[in-house]
Amino acid sequence: MKNDFPQNRRLFLQTGTLAAAGWLAGKSLLSSGSALAADRTDTAPDAGDGKRPLKLALASYTLRKFSLEETLAMTRRVGLTAICLKSFHLPLDASEKQIAETRQKVAQAGLTLYGGGVIVLRNREQIDQAFDYAKSAGMKRIIGAPTVETLPLINEKIQQYDIEVAIHNHGPGDKHFPTPDVAYEKIKKFDPRFGLCHDVGHTVRYGKDPVAITEKCADRMLDVHMKDVTSATRKGRATPCGRGVVDIPTLLRALIKTGYKGYLAFEYESDPNDPLPGLAESVGYVRGVLDTL
Amino acid sequence: MKNDFPQNRRLFLQTGTLAAAGWLAGKSLLSSGSALAADRTDTAPDAGDGKRPLKLALASYTLRKFSLEETLAMTRRVGLTAICLKSFHLPLDASEKQIAETRQKVAQAGLTLYGGGVIVLRNREQIDQAFDYAKSAGMKRIIGAPTVETLPLINEKIQQYDIEVAIHNHGPGDKHFPTPDVAYEKIKKFDPRFGLCHDVGHTVRYGKDPVAITEKCADRMLDVHMKDVTSATRKGRATPCGRGVVDIPTLLRALIKTGYKGYLAFEYESDPNDPLPGLAESVGYVRGVLDTL
Repeated sequence: MKNDFPQNRRLFLQTGTLAAAGWLAGKSLLSSGSALAADRTDTAPDAGDGKRPLKLALASYTLRKFSLEETLAMTRRVGLTAICLKSFHLPLDASEKQIAETRQKVAQAGLTLYGGGVIVLRNREQIDQAFDYAKSAGMKRIIGAPTVETLPLINEKIQQYDIEVAIHNHGPGDKHFPTPDVAYEKIKKFDPRFGLCHDVGHTVRYGKDPVAITEKCADRMLDVHMKDVTSATRKGRATPCGRGVVDIPTLLRALIKTGYKGYLAFEYESDPNDPLPGLAESVGYVRGVLDTL
Repeated sequence: MKNDFPQNRRLFLQTGTLAAAGWLAGKSLLSSGSALAADRTDTAPDAGDGKRPLKLALASYTLRKFSLEETLAMTRRVGLTAICLKSFHLPLDASEKQIAETRQKVAQAGLTLYGGGVIVLRNREQIDQAFDYAKSAGMKRIIGAPTVETLPLINEKIQQYDIEVAIHNHGPGDKHFPTPDVAYEKIKKFDPRFGLCHDVGHTVRYGKDPVAITEKCADRMLDVHMKDVTSATRKGRATPCGRGVVDIPTLLRALIKTGYKGYLAFEYESDPNDPLPGLAESVGYVRGVLDTL
């Protein structure tokens, strides 16, 4: 009901869907920079995540149809303070100058640029490029899609660059690493900075239990792609967290219990042209779980 | 990361922000009806709320800048299955024909039209109109803003129409019923269908404990306006659930423990021109809490 709250109090809060609207209209309402200027961009909005037992972030594949500026604005809008950039927002062949500009934009938005990916790491050229890219961008972690054959080379580069690599599992159809436990067996002998990015949705779509995998692979768990899916089969589709079949409270309990220190990176794959509501619902759901555990 | 999920699987899922985009462009993308037609509208999308211990709904004041059609689409998009209509979406002086059409549209969207309000009930004319309106619309409950003086007349009408009235508290600045416990004392002697709509945000802004009020007033609790606020003072502003100072897990535990059977109706007051992300985050948060209690 009508009240005396200051309405519309921060222009910035509007930018998410304004960005979508601008995108739909074929132009970016953020391109003038005015929306960013309307808010303090040196610190991210406080949604209380600092007090929660797990760190939250965005996997920017979620916003693959949007510009970097729009992506940063939407990330802030849902109150996330860290981001893993997909190549849509920072091309793998970006120049040093482009990388520096992007790094600065992320910092100015008050966000931590903690990683890049998912990046394919299936030959020497891709691997060399990825490590140089991550180093220039100040990323501490590459979320990667290697093959068994490229693991030794990647391990060398991890030691050379002091950059972590987390192998991303891709569920049914992924002949290399459908679930994290498959990758876990192959990297045990390598540097401890060689670990896993557990894509929870793909694990469930493969018919495996993400909680058991979280416990089994705890010492190599470096990143998590947080999502929900409509069924525990290859036909499972992405859906906002809390609507699908993933037992998220039990999963988050297991992550906390096993001392997980990485990010829960939201990767909301549906509604690519208008992902903000589904992303926001997912972030809200996980916060609700964390506040109740 | 790119996967083999069917993307963009239901046009309907897009309609929320498309509606916002259309609104911003000065036209409704929903006006053709095509977006509604793209989805089954006889049942609401299943977000799993049927298995949760409290019923969720929308207080349509949240979407006061949007048409009825846009409002129904956005309500469905966040997976809510019940709605309380504010006068923006069904004017209090609507004709019988208008009311019948609206009732039909809500039903065709697969939603339960459980109530109307907040409706001012401060004189006989307003009270007569409200009960006739609610009866025609098939509403079981009026969320009302009466005065102490009009309570006896409202009580008579409740008995005559068999329609519940829930007094809405409005916090600081509300000279009649700032918090539910004030109203509770005044209605104890009246029909048990005369009860309360607990606006949690306004109670907190008044500096009172919504959990204690939930317990104290349990036998007259008919409706809840669910929200969060940035501080427990009159300066508190609306914010997505989970970001503010309201202890929502404890509140929901108290509602369940006291056997609350009504709705948690989301009333997200910020970002009136673009409320969908904040609403979605709030709905997600409450689902996360309910799934973890």
